[in-house]
Amino acid sequence: MAAGNRTTGSGEDRLIDRYFRPLARHPGAFGLIDDAATYTPPPGQDLVLTVDAIVAGVHFFSDDPPESIARKALRVNLSDLAAKGAAPAGFLLTMALPKTTDEVWLADFAQGLAADIAAFGCPLFGGDTVSTPGPATISVTAFGRLPEGTAVRRRGAKPGDSIVVSGAIGDAVLGLALRGRDADAKGWPLDDDERLFLIDRYLRPRPRLELAETIRLSASAAMDVSDGLAGDLAKLCAASGVDAVVDLAAVPLSVAARVVLSAHPALIERLITGGDDYEILATVSPDNFAALQEAGEAAGVPVTRIGEVKEGTGQALFLDPDGKVLDLAQTSFSHF
Amino acid sequence: MAAGNRTTGSGEDRLIDRYFRPLARHPGAFGLIDDAATYTPPPGQDLVLTVDAIVAGVHFFSDDPPESIARKALRVNLSDLAAKGAAPAGFLLTMALPKTTDEVWLADFAQGLAADIAAFGCPLFGGDTVSTPGPATISVTAFGRLPEGTAVRRRGAKPGDSIVVSGAIGDAVLGLALRGRDADAKGWPLDDDERLFLIDRYLRPRPRLELAETIRLSASAAMDVSDGLAGDLAKLCAASGVDAVVDLAAVPLSVAARVVLSAHPALIERLITGGDDYEILATVSPDNFAALQEAGEAAGVPVTRIGEVKEGTGQALFLDPDGKVLDLAQTSFSHF
Repeated sequence: MAAGNRTTGSGEDRLIDRYFRPLARHPGAFGLIDDAATYTPPPGQDLVLTVDAIVAGVHFFSDDPPESIARKALRVNLSDLAAKGAAPAGFLLTMALPKTTDEVWLADFAQGLAADIAAFGCPLFGGDTVSTPGPATISVTAFGRLPEGTAVRRRGAKPGDSIVVSGAIGDAVLGLALRGRDADAKGWPLDDDERLFLIDRYLRPRPRLELAETIRLSASAAMDVSDGLAGDLAKLCAASGVDAVVDLAAVPLSVAARVVLSAHPALIERLITGGDDYEILATVSPDNFAALQEAGEAAGVPVTRIGEVKEGTGQALFLDPDGKVLDLAQTSFSHF
Repeated sequence: MAAGNRTTGSGEDRLIDRYFRPLARHPGAFGLIDDAATYTPPPGQDLVLTVDAIVAGVHFFSDDPPESIARKALRVNLSDLAAKGAAPAGFLLTMALPKTTDEVWLADFAQGLAADIAAFGCPLFGGDTVSTPGPATISVTAFGRLPEGTAVRRRGAKPGDSIVVSGAIGDAVLGLALRGRDADAKGWPLDDDERLFLIDRYLRPRPRLELAETIRLSASAAMDVSDGLAGDLAKLCAASGVDAVVDLAAVPLSVAARVVLSAHPALIERLITGGDDYEILATVSPDNFAALQEAGEAAGVPVTRIGEVKEGTGQALFLDPDGKVLDLAQTSFSHF
C-alpha cells in the first residue's frame, strides 16, 4: 500500500478514535467519522442553544484534574439549559490543546466527560480538536429542547414576584481562593472536609437540571448565576425593566461558607459578587413559589426566597440586616 | 446609584453591545442578552450541526485582516453544511481573545461577520467571549437543516460511482505559501493578480452552498475538502468501504495554480495533499452526474469528474498521466 493511501495514522485521528469516539454513541453523531452530526428534534419542541468556553489560567488551573476540566466545560453549559427550563439533548466539543498534552491527560478528560454524559443524559455529537501554542481552551456548545415557545427568559420578572436561588451562593469563589492558595484563604478556620467541599464546588459545578421543568412551568424569568449573584441579578432586572430588593441575610450559604464568613464578615461582598456559582436565579409569582420549593425538596436542592421584585429601572439592591443598601465595589466578573 | 447596581460598564458587555448585538437580529437570539438562544426547526427537518475552531498562528496569521478571520471561521463551518446537503440556519461564536485585542480589530471582525451573515443567510444566535493569555482562537458552531434523514454522509459511495469535486483544488495551499512568504513561493512566475487570487483563496474559503441541494438529491457520499484532497478522499473511501481511482490530470486547477505547476511540476503533490480547499468532494452514480454538473453551471461553480469508485478497502489512488500510482509522502494535514 502506498503511503499516500493511509487513512489512519494521523495522531489527531488516533486520539479521537481512542478517547472520544466511544463517547459518541448517539446515531446522529455518526461515530464522529463525518463532517457534521444530525439531530431530529421532537415535533413541537424548540431547540435551546448555548456555548461557553473555558481557558486554562483564566477559568481553570492548568493542573486541575482533567476529568474536572471536562466536567466543568460541559456543566457550565448544562447550567444555562437548566435555567432556561430545557432538557439537555446533546453537545459539541472544541478542544484547542497544547502539543504537549499527553494521553494520560486526554484519557482522564474523556473519562470525566463520559461520566457526565451518562449522569446528565447528554450525548456527544461532534467536535473539533486543534493544537494551540497557547493554553488549553475548551468550548462546549450544548443544545437542549423544550415545548415550543416556553423557554424562560431573563426578561419577564414582574413587581411582586419573589426572587429565588437554588443551592448556595459563594462557595465557588471561596473554593477558587483555596484552590489558588490565596494568601487570605490560609487563615480561614476551615477543617479539611470544608476546605475540600469548597474546592469541589469550584471545580465541579452542579447544573440544576432537576429544577428545569419546574422553572419552565413556574418562573417568570430565570438565568444561571455564573458571574456573581449581584451582577447577574442586575442583568435580569435590566432585561425585565424592574428593580430587585434582596435581603442579604436570606442569601443561602453553605455551612463552610458560614464558617469563613463568621471569621471574616467583610467577605460577604465577595460571596455575592464572585462567580462560578452555577445556581439558578429565578423570579416567580408568590403563587408559584411553593411549587418550585417542592420541586427543590424532591430533588434535594434547596430553593430559597431571597427578595422581591419591585418597579424600577434595572437595579439590584442588597439590604444588610440594618436595612442599609450595600455599596458593592464590583458587581461581577468581566473578562475585559 | 450605588456602584453595585451597575448593569453596564463591564468592557465585555460593552464590546458585545457595540459590535455583536447588531448582528443577532434573529428573534431566537434574544438580542444576545440571554443565557441561551432558541431555534424552532421546521417540521420534518433534521438539524445538521458542525463545529470548527481556528487558532492564530495555526490556522490563520495573527495579522490577517480581521474581517477575513471572521469569514474564515464561519465559512469553514458552512462548507461542512454544504457538503452534507444542508441549508444554513444559524451559528454560535466563541472568541478567546488576547487582552491586547483592540476595538479596531473587533470592529473589522464584526464587519466581516456581518457581510457573511447577509451573504449566506446565516444569523448569529449567540456566543461567548473570553480572554486568553494565548493566541486568538475562534470557534464557530453552525447549524443547518434539511429534510429528515437526507443528510449526505461520507459513507455511501458505491463501485461505479463517479468522483467529483467542485471548484479548483490546491489554490489555498499555494496562497498560504505566498501569504507566509515561503522561500519557495518567491520564485513562482505569478503576476500580481494571480498572487492575490491565490492568497484570497487561502484567506476566504467559498462554501459551496449553491450546490448543497443538488448534493443532497444526487450524491451517494460527500464531504468537504479541508485537509487535502488525497487524505480526505481516503477518509471517504474508508467510511464507504471502497477504493477510489483518480486521474490526476483531471483534478481541476485554477489558472494561477497551473502557472505555478508549469514551473514546478513536483508541486502537484502539495496541491492534492494541502489543506484549506473547502471544495465539495462527492460521489455520484453516473446517472446523477449530469444533474450535479448542471447545478454547478447554474451556480457558476464548475463540478469536475476526477475519477471512479472501485471495490476496495479504503484506498485513494492517484494515477499520473502514465497510469502510475502516485506515492504521496503525507496525505493530509494533522494537528498532532
